Order: sequence, then C-alpha cells, then structure tokens
Amino acid sequence: MPTVPKLKLYTDSTPNGIKISMALEELGLSYEVEHIDISTNRQKEPWFLDINPNGRIPAIVDTSDDGEQIRIFEGGSILQYLTVRYDPEYKLSFPRASKEYWECNNFLFFQHGGIGPMQGQAAHFSRYAPTKIQYGIDRYTTETKRLYKVLDTQLAKSTSGFLVGDHISIADVANLSWVIFGPYVDVDLAKFPHLQKWEVMMSERPGICRGFHVPYPLRIKDKNQDATAMKDYQNRNTDWIMRQMKADQEAFSKG
Amino acid sequence: MPTVPKLKLYTDSTPNGIKISMALEELGLSYEVEHIDISTNRQKEPWFLDINPNGRIPAIVDTSDDGEQIRIFEGGSILQYLTVRYDPEYKLSFPRASKEYWECNNFLFFQHGGIGPMQGQAAHFSRYAPTKIQYGIDRYTTETKRLYKVLDTQLAKSTSGFLVGDHISIADVANLSWVIFGPYVDVDLAKFPHLQKWEVMMSERPGICRGFHVPYPLRIKDKNQDATAMKDYQNRNTDWIMRQMKADQEAFSKG
Repeated sequence: MPTVPKLKLYTDSTPNGIKISMALEELGLSYEVEHIDISTNRQKEPWFLDINPNGRIPAIVDTSDDGEQIRIFEGGSILQYLTVRYDPEYKLSFPRASKEYWECNNFLFFQHGGIGPMQGQAAHFSRYAPTKIQYGIDRYTTETKRLYKVLDTQLAKSTSGFLVGDHISIADVANLSWVIFGPYVDVDLAKFPHLQKWEVMMSERPGICRGFHVPYPLRIKDKNQDATAMKDYQNRNTDWIMRQMKADQEAFSKG
Repeated sequence: MPTVPKLKLYTDSTPNGIKISMALEELGLSYEVEHIDISTNRQKEPWFLDINPNGRIPAIVDTSDDGEQIRIFEGGSILQYLTVRYDPEYKLSFPRASKEYWECNNFLFFQHGGIGPMQGQAAHFSRYAPTKIQYGIDRYTTETKRLYKVLDTQLAKSTSGFLVGDHISIADVANLSWVIFGPYVDVDLAKFPHLQKWEVMMSERPGICRGFHVPYPLRIKDKNQDATAMKDYQNRNTDWIMRQMKADQEAFSKG
C-alpha cells in the first residue's frame, strides 16, 4: 500500500462526496479527511474558495512531486487525478489510451454531466423545493430513469458485471454514488435489474462500504429504516439548500 | 497539419456540439461531419445508440492504431481524447500531469457538470417549457450567473487572458461554447467584464469561428439580429424538446 503524505479530502456525506472516499478506499490509499459541513456554508469561506473556486465539495489538496501543493476539484477531475497518480496497477482504471480507458472515460463523463446534475434536480424538486412543482418532479425523475436505463443496457451486455472491461473502475464508482441514492428520488431499482444486481455487488465491496461512510455513517441504506433515514437526510438539507438559493438569487438579481 | 483518416464527428448546432468542432478547428485536424438533426430524433436511432448509448450529440468515431474503430461520447471525454491523441504540441492542452494539466481538467469538468447542465435547464424553463414556471427560471438563471462569476473571478487573476496557463486550452473552448449562449438565457455578459473580454477575444479566433458554424451557420451572434436569430433558434427546438420529453415520460412512467 503506497504511503501518501498530505493527501487531504474535503468532503461531506453526499453522492458527490462519497464517490471520492469510495475510490480512495478501493485504491487502499491513506488520506486525511476534513468534514466540510455544507449546511453551515463552510464551502463558501474564502480559504475553501482557494481550494475550489466553485465553493462545492468534494475537493482534494495533494503534494506534487516538486513539493508544491496542488488543488483538484470537481468529482470526475479528482477521480482521474487519483488513478493517474496512484493507480499503477489499474485497480480502478485501465492502461492509458487503451480502448477500455476511453470507454471508462465516456461513462465517467456520463455521470458527471448526466446522472449527477439531473438526479440532483430530481432531488431538489421532490425533496427540497418549498412548493410542489409537478413539472419539475416529472421532468427530472424521468430523466434520471432514462439515464439509469442507459446504464442498465450497458450492464446487460457486460460479461464481468462492471460497466467497462473486466474489473471495477472509476466509471462504476462515480455512477454508483448516485444510483445508491435512486430510492431517494423515488426511482425503483427493481425496474432496472442489471443495474440493481450491480448496485448490490458493488455495495458489498469492503472498500466501497468504508468509503460510503465517510465523513460519517450514512444511514440511507440501513435495513428497515430507509424511509426514516431518508427523511432525516432530507430534513438536514432542506434549510441550507433553500437559504443558499435565496442568497444566490439576491446576490445575482442585478446580474 | 496531421492527416487524420476516418475521424468522424456526429453533431448539431448546439453548445455541446460546437465545442467539439471548435476544438477540431483549433487543432487543425481534418474530420468528416455528419449532421445529426436532433429535431428529427436521429440521435435515438439504433445505429447511433451503438455510437452513443445515451442518444445525444456530440459523439465521434475514430480509427485506433490497431485499425479498430473506437467510439467517444460526452463532450468532455471527446475533448480529452482529441488532445491526448492529436495534440502533441499542446495547442489546446498541457503536458500530462503538470499543474496546468490538472487545473485545465478542473475547469473542463466544471463546464461539463456545472455550466452545461445548469444553463441547459435555464434555457428549458425560459425558452421551452409550455407554461411559465418562475421558480425554474429563477433557479437556473441564478445558478448560471453564479457559475459565470466563478469564471470571471478566475479570468480576473489570469495574466494570459485564458482560464489556465499561458495559452488557450480545452477548458476555454468547453466553457466558451456555453458562455456564447449566455444572452439566450438572458444573462448579460457586461456584468462579468473579464468573462466578456475573454468571450470577445476567443470568438475572434479563426478556428473558433469556423467551428462555431459547424454543421451549419449559426446566426445567434449576428449583429443587430441577435433577438430574431435567438427566437428562430428557440422555435426550431421547442417542438422536438417537448415531444421527446413527453415520449420519455410515457416510456418511464411505470419505472
């Protein structure tokens, strides 16, 4: 196991956050965690904007070979960085510029630009918006299902059970972090049998399990209390999401 | 100028489409264009789903060194592919794993997961949705402005005028493709002076200009007729967007 000095992860318990800790655990890397409690808006503080000017988790700071610090933000960018720098055995990746490498990249960006933002909007309209806007709920829940179907179709053709090639990769990890939250936006995984099987198989991996509970134990998959745990998760987030949205609208109303 | 046999771009005149043709032109590559008229749903035909299972433009098909064909989909994935394979002189990229390489990657993913999907939703609610939902318009227009401010702040600190390092990169090209469409979602670039200056400087480049008009001349930047051209663009898209949304909702209503 490689020793990684000063690799620091800034994260919170969200789909985008846990995908990085799941990857770090699967790679067997040592890292320091700083919990950025997004409900207190720490991610908008000036010191953190120097790390991620977009004011979002996750982000990492690492020490380059020349001893200088480097900042990496955006989930997909972090996953690429971790595999390029710390995955010489291709535990979560494929040899550079191989066919599998590019297919893995396709599905990494598919998550980053598709499932992530669209399922995020489904959560917003179904869990957080102050009034029920059925158009928004339908639009984004449908798009989430359409995207899940793309993954389901890809997995139906897979002989390994993974999205790309013969082993787990950052494409699996990135998409899993959102698929785990499918029930949170009322998407029934049983309608996507290959995806459901993959979700179970992936979730049983010890590394994925450990990463799932960073920076603190996440209860949404607890047996027999999913609904309660999800409601708790929703309640924890609603206030700050609407507060932040209002603050942004005031800041940019003249822009 | 390298000869590139059989590099084929499947595209249409959208922010995501033009970013690829702009990059291809900046790299000076030869390529074949196939216009996928998304208003006729060609992107959902089985032959195209073999190229991009997500049924979206842009996508490319290229011939690997081993003579086999390779598919690349998702805008950010395509931009990375083009620079890894065809940019040995770093015209649009930086040496692999350098500090500039990673910062470029940060802002590439920033576009792919942020400006792209969020400005896309702003366009949906302000231009395409059948009823006016002010909550949706405000939410996504504000988020677009917030993201533009992140770019504006980055550019304010730039000595080269580009987002990263001392020259243009795929980070600039990717973000430009959406910023050009800022006025389409009623975002006034004059409120983001560094971004506006960068947009003008970028848009004057001959390669960017050529790529902007692939697969057909795009009139939204024409002097004195922006509003008319934008209305034409809107009218061209509204029907098929709502038709596709309805079809997806019927397909996944039980899922």
